[in-house]
Amino acid sequence: MPKIEALIFDVFGTVVDWQSTVTRELKELGEKHGAPTTTEWDKFAQEWESQLTQHTRRVAAGGAGSFNVDIVYREILDSMLNSEAWSTIGSIWSEETRNGLSMVWHRLDGWPDATPGLYALKKHTIIATLSNGNVRLLVDMAKHADLPWDAVLSAELFQAYKPNSKIYLSALQHLSVPPERIALVAAHMYDLRAARALGMQTVYVPRPDEEGDPSVKSGEVKSKKDGGEVDWVVGSFEELAQVVERVNKE
Amino acid sequence: MPKIEALIFDVFGTVVDWQSTVTRELKELGEKHGAPTTTEWDKFAQEWESQLTQHTRRVAAGGAGSFNVDIVYREILDSMLNSEAWSTIGSIWSEETRNGLSMVWHRLDGWPDATPGLYALKKHTIIATLSNGNVRLLVDMAKHADLPWDAVLSAELFQAYKPNSKIYLSALQHLSVPPERIALVAAHMYDLRAARALGMQTVYVPRPDEEGDPSVKSGEVKSKKDGGEVDWVVGSFEELAQVVERVNKE
Repeated sequence: MPKIEALIFDVFGTVVDWQSTVTRELKELGEKHGAPTTTEWDKFAQEWESQLTQHTRRVAAGGAGSFNVDIVYREILDSMLNSEAWSTIGSIWSEETRNGLSMVWHRLDGWPDATPGLYALKKHTIIATLSNGNVRLLVDMAKHADLPWDAVLSAELFQAYKPNSKIYLSALQHLSVPPERIALVAAHMYDLRAARALGMQTVYVPRPDEEGDPSVKSGEVKSKKDGGEVDWVVGSFEELAQVVERVNKE
Repeated sequence: MPKIEALIFDVFGTVVDWQSTVTRELKELGEKHGAPTTTEWDKFAQEWESQLTQHTRRVAAGGAGSFNVDIVYREILDSMLNSEAWSTIGSIWSEETRNGLSMVWHRLDGWPDATPGLYALKKHTIIATLSNGNVRLLVDMAKHADLPWDAVLSAELFQAYKPNSKIYLSALQHLSVPPERIALVAAHMYDLRAARALGMQTVYVPRPDEEGDPSVKSGEVKSKKDGGEVDWVVGSFEELAQVVERVNKE
């Protein structure tokens, strides 16, 4: 197995737990502003994220649109709050509240293993983001959740959203590393399949309710040696640090 | 004074002491391979760096050329070793030795205040590189010299060398910050003048033998309040951390 010179990480869902953080902040805002107690905040969070994903997929496939997800998240928020489904809360949330809420994506909490795992990995290899998030969002999130990235690589820098091959190839170019000596770490098979097609190594990390692709059962994803598609399946970043240490010592 | 949301740093000469590191490694290689003891290694280091600067200035002004300085440093090295001035050592350094030597730019030592200063600054503001160096070089250097950047911004990413305005404007865009809330930190007035012209704040750090512009005496650069051109002149990054803490508390 070639040595791993660099790991690049999907961030939303893989490193940080957006669902819990966004749902919690929505609920707190609802309580502060007097929204109905029956409001399904988890559904609001999921719709917000899902519309962002639709935007990135459309642009990744060649459509027009912004590469700054701060702008896109804010536009989606307004559109949702103007829709019939969320009109009750739309009527009570001011411009200022909406601006503050939009920034929730900058202060997502890491999964419990993320910070200790990244510090351990950083000793053995380069660790960088490869995220559809914009640079400032990723920098703020790293400061909030203590994620010690060696480099913040982003769709915004490369004008390409995952799974467009341009974003992965740009990462290879700027990290000056051949594809077989870099691994993408993600909780989503669509992302890993795109990286694998370019000859990169792949690490799947199952995260609760994160897979997204209904044809994939995250608990059943297998590594190549077990007949699956990816190079490794790991339960945590700490486990991944042990894998990388072992591979790089061989 | 507006709060400082982000600091961007010139790296070569400002954060790291390239002259000492490169001269030392050249001398060690010379001793290992039996070069004449009279070889002026400091002159070799200065010529290597000076030719790189000529390349970046030429491209910054609209000329054609690579944005990956790893490639440019390697080409300059070969050209120097093929020249009459350095032919004695050119005849004894193999391809492998040259490749290894080229990487010296990835392992430059920080000035003594750089690492503690950056850790202190990181608590109060975003700290990022804005360097003519390529991404992998800056990442390796950060690991070698323990420089805890929040983001690695580089000429290579933006296809623009300093002092071309495109590189400063790209930094503003990706850090999502207005020019008055960011400061460039540098030991070179040409760089700070370019940033100032775009409305950015400026911090001059005098470093021994680093200014380069013969019309500027680094020990005599003054801040605006003393009738000079820059917002602050600081003796160290640790002093800068105190300035930023004070400004951001006001």
